[in-house]
Amino acid sequence: MTVLFAVAGWSPEHWVAAYREADPERAVVVAPELGDPAAIRYALAWKPPAGLLAGLPNLEVIFSLGAGVDHLLGDPTLPDLPLVRIVDPDLTRRMTDWVVLQALMHLRAQRTYDRQQRERRWAQHPYPTATDVRVGIMGFGVLGRAAARTLAAIGFDVAGWSRTPPADATGFPVFSGEAGLGDFLGRTDILVVLLPLTPETRGILGRPLFERLARDCALGGPVLINAGRGGLQVEADIVAAIGDGTLIGASLDVFATEPLPETSPLWADERVIITPHIAAESDPRALSRYVAGQIAAHERGEPLQNLVDRARGY
Amino acid sequence: MTVLFAVAGWSPEHWVAAYREADPERAVVVAPELGDPAAIRYALAWKPPAGLLAGLPNLEVIFSLGAGVDHLLGDPTLPDLPLVRIVDPDLTRRMTDWVVLQALMHLRAQRTYDRQQRERRWAQHPYPTATDVRVGIMGFGVLGRAAARTLAAIGFDVAGWSRTPPADATGFPVFSGEAGLGDFLGRTDILVVLLPLTPETRGILGRPLFERLARDCALGGPVLINAGRGGLQVEADIVAAIGDGTLIGASLDVFATEPLPETSPLWADERVIITPHIAAESDPRALSRYVAGQIAAHERGEPLQNLVDRARGY
Ligand SMILES: NC(=O)c1ccc[n+]([C@@H]2O[C@H](COP(=O)([O-])OP(=O)(O)OC[C@H]3O[C@@H](n4cnc5c(N)ncnc54)[C@H](OP(=O)(O)O)[C@@H]3O)[C@@H](O)[C@H]2O)c1
Ligand SMILES: NC(=O)c1ccc[n+]([C@@H]2O[C@H](COP(=O)([O-])OP(=O)(O)OC[C@H]3O[C@@H](n4cnc5c(N)ncnc54)[C@H](OP(=O)(O)O)[C@@H]3O)[C@@H](O)[C@H]2O)c1
Repeated sequence: MTVLFAVAGWSPEHWVAAYREADPERAVVVAPELGDPAAIRYALAWKPPAGLLAGLPNLEVIFSLGAGVDHLLGDPTLPDLPLVRIVDPDLTRRMTDWVVLQALMHLRAQRTYDRQQRERRWAQHPYPTATDVRVGIMGFGVLGRAAARTLAAIGFDVAGWSRTPPADATGFPVFSGEAGLGDFLGRTDILVVLLPLTPETRGILGRPLFERLARDCALGGPVLINAGRGGLQVEADIVAAIGDGTLIGASLDVFATEPLPETSPLWADERVIITPHIAAESDPRALSRYVAGQIAAHERGEPLQNLVDRARGY
Repeated sequence: MTVLFAVAGWSPEHWVAAYREADPERAVVVAPELGDPAAIRYALAWKPPAGLLAGLPNLEVIFSLGAGVDHLLGDPTLPDLPLVRIVDPDLTRRMTDWVVLQALMHLRAQRTYDRQQRERRWAQHPYPTATDVRVGIMGFGVLGRAAARTLAAIGFDVAGWSRTPPADATGFPVFSGEAGLGDFLGRTDILVVLLPLTPETRGILGRPLFERLARDCALGGPVLINAGRGGLQVEADIVAAIGDGTLIGASLDVFATEPLPETSPLWADERVIITPHIAAESDPRALSRYVAGQIAAHERGEPLQNLVDRARGY
């Protein structure tokens, strides 16, 4: 009943320590040291070496070490086993904090005041209130709905967009699918993107979409805030859209290539706020408790939670 | 029953236009043109020329054009008439937006990421969540309580400090007076100041107070956020406290001298966020409706709302 840490490119030491604290009785191995491969029943994976998981004869469950699973589904050799993703209140709260911070920075022209400060210049500019500004959240799942609740508490006028109409009332207008996209974008001043990266969503954040955003905007033009995945965005289109006023600002936490290359023109524009994929850090201790709890439930014969549907890709 | 605009140093044109819209039947004059001084019953004042109001024989009510009245009470010739201050939901909401923005900028080390962006540098830093951070709000009146509600919705652990114990339950722990100050400061990681400027509060934000703030802070040290009045703060002490780590950051919207002089060392430190007294702009149309409504009620014989108590100074 061994647990395997299957990560590549970084050392999961603090994850392993946190996991041992959450599940002290369990044997834990860290790739590439597998011990007896037949003993491994559970894999905790983040961008695992290609083919590694396929070689484990008794593997039962794969846990993603993040909320997204695009880093796993890209591997064609990934065994057809239950795949569990992270849903954690601490991670959700961190994402909400980041989204609210970025929305308020654009609402209150913080980057303009930052520049004025460097120039030692005192100049006041009129600004709208949150109640004058419509936020549209693309990807209205766990993270999108949590952000919606806090943005609404501040006073923003919030709506969501998802693949399918929500089964339960969310308390917000929700548009869905291709059919709902035009109306959704047409009422959106600040576009917050919390979509998973799937074959359908790849490259969705490009010029054609930006041109459908509201133009009658209290901010003077639309703003893009993306913390979903870099693969959603066409970065050359973002640069051009900021340049010609199709977008008046952006906040990006994720990029097509991470770390963002030094040569990217995104770094250079004060209207684009760049953060280095820190919107919602995973807390190893909270997430280890979550995984250990799911393994214990599974071993008691109870169903796994937050399973990924491979056909839809998230 | 004429209304007088009594302001010095700026032109109240847009205020006068907004007031005429809210109260179209009324005669309006703008100092220094008084028309018949005996016709003036109401003054809308912001830093009025010294002695001006004392010369109006039939003045009945003085309205402050802002939430604070320190700009009026400094004039020893101010006639002893009812003095009404601004309380407006739009202004309150703007202040909450600014306070929340500033609290989140410090929580999420936004100024560090801003610098990294200018340096094209990708580096992630650990950070606490809002639930790990205690916010203490000095001045727990209209603005302080509104900010408290939104900060708590985000997850911050909020308490207040006021002159007197609140008459009604606020939903928050409230400390009061000198007796409560030590315990209040000792549990505060982010100090938000929304106090009025009075003889008691002048200069309160100095080194002795900063040294009483919590040191066991998830942010690494305490942060000061002041949108009350510049006269509350000892700016040399803020510079020194940031320099030696007694404070790890500050957001200041108000200053002892405004505009903040180019020579002030406050401009130069990235840990100090400077905004030019824009935390809560007054909306002339909303505020004109408020004043016109109060004048109409007064003329029907009803009591004035939001009267200032001159003895306490706010
Ligand atoms: N930057 C960071 O630090 C960070 C941290 C954590 C997560 N993330 C990203 O955030 C993403 C969302 O996380 P979550 O927990 O909120 O996921 P979730 O609960 O699965 O929600 C995903 C949402 O996206 C919608 N969606 C998926 N495909 C769509 C499509 N083709 N068209 C329209 N809507 C579509 C879903 O629609 P339905 O409701 O119809 O299913 C759902 O509303 C993750 O996948 C990850 O990429 C980033
Ligand atoms: N930067 C901006 O753009 C901006 C805009 C608007 C207002 N402001 C400032 O914000 C201030 C507060 O506005 P408000 O509408 O919230 O005022 P308020 O409703 O009168 O509240 C004032 C609060 O401060 C407390 N207080 C007063 N003197 C005190 C003392 N000596 N010790 C401890 N607590 C004391 C009061 O205590 P009690 O509850 O016991 O009375 C009350 O809780 C204004 O006076 C103005 O200076 C700034």
